[in-house]
Amino acid sequence: MEKISLKAGTLLSPLPPVMVSCGTMEKPNIITIAWTGIINSQPPKTYISVRKSRYSYDIIKENKEFVINLTTADLVRAADLCGVKSGRDVDKFALCDLHPQESEKISAPAIEEAHLCLECVVTKIEELGSHDMFMADIVNVRADSSLMDKNGRLALEKSDLVAYTHGEYYTLGKKLGKFGFSVQKKKKHHKKTDKK
Amino acid sequence: MEKISLKAGTLLSPLPPVMVSCGTMEKPNIITIAWTGIINSQPPKTYISVRKSRYSYDIIKENKEFVINLTTADLVRAADLCGVKSGRDVDKFALCDLHPQESEKISAPAIEEAHLCLECVVTKIEELGSHDMFMADIVNVRADSSLMDKNGRLALEKSDLVAYTHGEYYTLGKKLGKFGFSVQKKKKHHKKTDKK
Repeated sequence: MEKISLKAGTLLSPLPPVMVSCGTMEKPNIITIAWTGIINSQPPKTYISVRKSRYSYDIIKENKEFVINLTTADLVRAADLCGVKSGRDVDKFALCDLHPQESEKISAPAIEEAHLCLECVVTKIEELGSHDMFMADIVNVRADSSLMDKNGRLALEKSDLVAYTHGEYYTLGKKLGKFGFSVQKKKKHHKKTDKK
Repeated sequence: MEKISLKAGTLLSPLPPVMVSCGTMEKPNIITIAWTGIINSQPPKTYISVRKSRYSYDIIKENKEFVINLTTADLVRAADLCGVKSGRDVDKFALCDLHPQESEKISAPAIEEAHLCLECVVTKIEELGSHDMFMADIVNVRADSSLMDKNGRLALEKSDLVAYTHGEYYTLGKKLGKFGFSVQKKKKHHKKTDKK
């Protein structure tokens, strides 16, 4: 395949455009962030990278806590709005008709309308240039109870998650397979590619 | 929304299940990794988190270079295979019928069949527990020339990217909007939600 060089840039895709809630139940804020990921499995660790100029930067640096709320299709307009507006100027919960919800293990509130929330405690801040990276332990995960199937398994695929790609938001589409599908023995008439 | 607590875990979604190529043109390897993300915009920085036991771990630690190749639907079986098999046992390029391609700025090869490749140079290794995090500068980006539209813009949405969610691979589905769509003025009869 013939390739051309582009300017070195942040073209990793797709990414999760998560809504990060921080502050307190009385004065909560939300910032939307795609610069996030899992950095360790045991113990579970994540990060968010935030510009120093952002309103949430000082809040998270001070409180050392935040909640990652996954963005689903019903929340995509709110997620976009929370990525554009500043908490210095507006109450983003009120603006988006969202409600803070008490977390279980930390003081920072979750978003009540979110289907999956990761409660995070900052363990280290790394200055990298335009952004500072907040590394954090995931100390608790809370899920919408309707996402649990009858076997007690989290059916995250029912939540209509949103992916962020090159400046655009997308739903997830067709299921292509489970981890390990490439080495599973084929059953007769077994259809490998299911609709979501 | 009623929520229940789950075991604290790595439930961030969707993530990019990238194929990381490393080593040399003569002895290349591939490892599939979802523990990746963008950590800084200027300069562009990314990371991959890798278990010490993985065959690619020592290669990347030694050479301080790797290439992130985005996974598209045509490569999802190869990506899955490269996440399951070890380069100690098999030549993954041969196994998956893929070909190493010379990078422009680093010695580690890209995957010729990949549509978008990020050439990365390791700047720091952070030990976190089960995984070590390789922070890296993105020093070059190369794209399939057929992904460039007539205005010279990268049309990444044409590449059929794959998302990884809770152990399953998905295509991207419906486009929900561009960054900033929530504050754009509505035009009459303007349909905000387009098919991809």
